[in-house]
Amino acid sequence: MKALVYHGPKQIQWEEKPTPTIQDPSDAIVKILKTTICGTDLHILKGDVPTVTDGRILGHEGVGIVEEIGEGVSNFHVGDRVLISCITSCAKCDPCKKGMYSHCKSGGWILGNTIDGAQAEYTRIPHADSSLYNVPYGVEEDALVMLSDILPTGFECGVLNGQVKPGDTVAIVGAGPVGLAALLTAQFYSPAEIIMIDIDDNRLEVAKKFGATKVINSNYGKPIEKIMELTGNQGVDVAIEAVGIPATFEICQYIVTPGGHIANVGVHGKSVELHLETLWSHNITITTRLVDTVTTPMLLKVVQSGKLKPEQLITHHFYLDEIIKAYDVFSKGAQEKALKVILSAR
Amino acid sequence: MKALVYHGPKQIQWEEKPTPTIQDPSDAIVKILKTTICGTDLHILKGDVPTVTDGRILGHEGVGIVEEIGEGVSNFHVGDRVLISCITSCAKCDPCKKGMYSHCKSGGWILGNTIDGAQAEYTRIPHADSSLYNVPYGVEEDALVMLSDILPTGFECGVLNGQVKPGDTVAIVGAGPVGLAALLTAQFYSPAEIIMIDIDDNRLEVAKKFGATKVINSNYGKPIEKIMELTGNQGVDVAIEAVGIPATFEICQYIVTPGGHIANVGVHGKSVELHLETLWSHNITITTRLVDTVTTPMLLKVVQSGKLKPEQLITHHFYLDEIIKAYDVFSKGAQEKALKVILSAR
Repeated sequence: MKALVYHGPKQIQWEEKPTPTIQDPSDAIVKILKTTICGTDLHILKGDVPTVTDGRILGHEGVGIVEEIGEGVSNFHVGDRVLISCITSCAKCDPCKKGMYSHCKSGGWILGNTIDGAQAEYTRIPHADSSLYNVPYGVEEDALVMLSDILPTGFECGVLNGQVKPGDTVAIVGAGPVGLAALLTAQFYSPAEIIMIDIDDNRLEVAKKFGATKVINSNYGKPIEKIMELTGNQGVDVAIEAVGIPATFEICQYIVTPGGHIANVGVHGKSVELHLETLWSHNITITTRLVDTVTTPMLLKVVQSGKLKPEQLITHHFYLDEIIKAYDVFSKGAQEKALKVILSAR
Repeated sequence: MKALVYHGPKQIQWEEKPTPTIQDPSDAIVKILKTTICGTDLHILKGDVPTVTDGRILGHEGVGIVEEIGEGVSNFHVGDRVLISCITSCAKCDPCKKGMYSHCKSGGWILGNTIDGAQAEYTRIPHADSSLYNVPYGVEEDALVMLSDILPTGFECGVLNGQVKPGDTVAIVGAGPVGLAALLTAQFYSPAEIIMIDIDDNRLEVAKKFGATKVINSNYGKPIEKIMELTGNQGVDVAIEAVGIPATFEICQYIVTPGGHIANVGVHGKSVELHLETLWSHNITITTRLVDTVTTPMLLKVVQSGKLKPEQLITHHFYLDEIIKAYDVFSKGAQEKALKVILSAR
């Protein structure tokens, strides 16, 4: 089969690899129909993710058809159309029993990281019974791919951890795909205001279309002052950090109101300064989370009901064998007005 | 009347001051029977709390008798024995309606801070109806004084914010009065282990008597390694920071298990380094809080039932007019084996 293979920083290739086979009774082999590229894949390409080694097939998102199942698989059958979760979970270990699949003792984020991933014609999914989802009738595949990672990430790490409530004022720092996923899913809980902060006008325009009530381009200076002004100097109930750098986490600390929440979604490469000299008395809650994908069944129902349209996040379409070009476009993000790209099998 | 008056860093005096009078219909004047000195008072003495100005009567804890009430006070009557809360709350503003009395728009921690306090023969309590508590029958006054501040502080900021659950492994960094208050109240929720960390062997001995299952003197090196060893390399479910310096907050970050809680209780004067480069994916929750004293009624019931004996925290007794001596002993803390001191009217 053909697959997208990592060969060290800045080196990827669409090349021939052996088609995966069942290695454990809990495995399923899935023929990929659709996959996508994640911001995390770009981190890998920069060499920021040392667990990814030379020869690894990348990718942890996708929709496909079950091609083969191991003897222990009972929830799925050959020919089933399935959604692949970016998180593999055994459903048996202590973290899984707490619903913390991201920290599964024999899973977590392994796909396209410590085992071969989904940017390929076929992929092997361990613990298939608890790591795949049946695709509901009537939902289009492009939309579904958004449920492998970014929608549950924005929802669980941002909206649920931030405890967005009706009437809240929410700020989302970062209008990339995950920030926009948080924007879309925050609206489930009817906040009064959602202020979106980014450095790219195009993404902020998209955010407005997706339901942001206010947008701020932080490149034009003083985002903290602007947010305080917009909130009558009260600050926000929930600040969602969806970038992953010290400067954006800093903004969140200054705009959160006493009693508020800072929900970190961003993948951070460096430590940040935490202003406990002020915040110690502000009754705030800061949360971090690697997506657990425990809300995938819930999100599938919302998509099926038509109340969430994840296909809005898709800006570009390619065939799977054009993936090198797709990486190029996706890596240029704002410049190409790219949010999510869909790669389809021919 | 006589009162303990602050005259700038390191300058306090027991001196003559006018007896307070009703200034607002919601006020009550309370004759002090018992009061105490708080770690915060020592911060004030160092000049660390700029809101406290020359001439201020210090103190925010105590038990007394209602001497006079304003026209708007309906819950209390002259002659009632009352507990003074360190937090003044109007019960009417937005933060109060959320139960966040610490951020009351016309209250919060004002006593012995922005208005005259309780280390005096008489004190004026604004918003008396919602800032005083009737003393239940059969509870001794010394014990009650511990409910003005340190018990709700350890309980709300440490135990409740840390979400201590049955079976949890809890670490409390700092075995001062507030850390010990967290230790006593954590046991309401039946954690499996409570590991107490301090630099003073005497306080750790006290912690053992109060129910700590393990103690670690961090002066003898490598507290993080020791805690990881004690927990089978799992870390703790809840880390309670009860000191307020970067080094102790750092310990908490390294010992918290994925999915765990860091509950900050300490009063911090400096920012700290937050290790988001690791913690971003660890599903942790960090909380801060100024005590709201919303649990005072609950704690009063627990004390009345005999299940909590706050008098254990009291090591020294003085008369109110000996308060300068009491400050001296209390400020020497560990050296004097002092935890809480009680000052009684003659």
